[in-house]
Amino acid sequence: MKLSIVVNATPKATPLAADIPLEEATALAAEIGFEGVELAVADPLDVDLTELTQMLESYGLKVPALGTGAAYKEGLSLAHPNDAQRARAIERLKAHVDLGSVLEADVIVGLIRGKMSDGLPYDEAINHIKDGLSHVSTYAKSKNVRILVEPINRYEIDLLNTIGDAYSIASQLDDNVGLLIDTFHMNIEESNLTEPIRKAADRIWHVHIADNTRWAPGFGCLDFQGVINALQDIGYPGYLSAEMMHMPDYETAFRQMFTYMAPLISCG
Amino acid sequence: MKLSIVVNATPKATPLAADIPLEEATALAAEIGFEGVELAVADPLDVDLTELTQMLESYGLKVPALGTGAAYKEGLSLAHPNDAQRARAIERLKAHVDLGSVLEADVIVGLIRGKMSDGLPYDEAINHIKDGLSHVSTYAKSKNVRILVEPINRYEIDLLNTIGDAYSIASQLDDNVGLLIDTFHMNIEESNLTEPIRKAADRIWHVHIADNTRWAPGFGCLDFQGVINALQDIGYPGYLSAEMMHMPDYETAFRQMFTYMAPLISCG
Repeated sequence: MKLSIVVNATPKATPLAADIPLEEATALAAEIGFEGVELAVADPLDVDLTELTQMLESYGLKVPALGTGAAYKEGLSLAHPNDAQRARAIERLKAHVDLGSVLEADVIVGLIRGKMSDGLPYDEAINHIKDGLSHVSTYAKSKNVRILVEPINRYEIDLLNTIGDAYSIASQLDDNVGLLIDTFHMNIEESNLTEPIRKAADRIWHVHIADNTRWAPGFGCLDFQGVINALQDIGYPGYLSAEMMHMPDYETAFRQMFTYMAPLISCG
Repeated sequence: MKLSIVVNATPKATPLAADIPLEEATALAAEIGFEGVELAVADPLDVDLTELTQMLESYGLKVPALGTGAAYKEGLSLAHPNDAQRARAIERLKAHVDLGSVLEADVIVGLIRGKMSDGLPYDEAINHIKDGLSHVSTYAKSKNVRILVEPINRYEIDLLNTIGDAYSIASQLDDNVGLLIDTFHMNIEESNLTEPIRKAADRIWHVHIADNTRWAPGFGCLDFQGVINALQDIGYPGYLSAEMMHMPDYETAFRQMFTYMAPLISCG
């Protein structure tokens, strides 16, 4: 397993990354010892690809995944009642796939899948989400990119809250659709932190790390060693990527993530 | 420590109690072995006090506390920008104090304290909350009733999320203002489940129980024995009161709460 941290590749794409310029965040991550930076990207067309790839190469960092949640705040949703908005969400995700294809990064479908509160009942919302994921994953397959559905806690979204829910959807789609699991969401939604990992083993392709308070790991009381042991048991080869509040300040949070998690990986 | 469970004394006062008639819930609680029922009450004027006290007496049940959160859904808030709405919230809480005085029950201030998103910045909202609590607690003191401030997680309210926050406010008020702590909220807000209990020991007067998923205890993975041990260490003499989702059904949830918690109390 390798360590990564979420950074904003377009300004303020997520409040769960430091609000600092991309290169500053990347330089700090590289200095501390991270192997990857996960990029939060509102619109991939705003990214200067040449500059980005050169910068990443100069720091020797990979990009395990691209976050897409900022697009939801623009009204893009796979579950939107309006055909045009759903189509816009699919087009945006295809642009993320294009970027992912160059960076060899997976594309995350978190908030952009939409909610029942966008206006449709559960069955219709889910059918639109499946349909949208199917379009995007077919396109992604042609580009050798994987799609990651992220279970998110009940307070942030009103469908696909648990790993079981997301696994059930992913299993009905292409074999390039898997799961991003997040310890903060799991702590609210899962009755057990390890069992769902074992059950969804074949589709867990990315992991977000935050403690129970959403601060850096070790600033709360989650059993990260238990989670890591379960991931080792299923042979998880991927990244543990910090998606967390940058408290008390971003530099402390960056360093805490690395200092706390690196020994747990090697001692597991 | 004694076991209690939240029931609706006015219809649908809270979704975290079974949606069944009060007497049916009370009868089931008594049959299972609970010593108390915590009453969720939207407007105390809708309660038939004679009928209620006779019913409680017939089942031999006490009322540790009264829940008031339903009033927030009517627009009552101690932090409301509008003077009249704040005054209505204070009047409503005084009516709860009157009911509490008869039932020897504490009065909970949870959602009814209001939010910044009601329209005022933090300092003003907090000052109004302190002012409202001061009015209500002075009145309550004359009636021998205690007021319980409940820390609630960040997704449901935007101030007083942690035990430390609530303790800081309570300490500035009358000596009949204390805390209701809730294991579900603690699991999201506290970096440790036992330390905050020790720190706020002198003002912890009531405890809500739910597992990390907000289902009945034992249906998740919270360390309830650790919480109970900490409460025993501080000499907590009060109730552990189930405020939880009634899943998979209310009768299973009632029985699970009692069956799981009773041994932990006696073995602690």
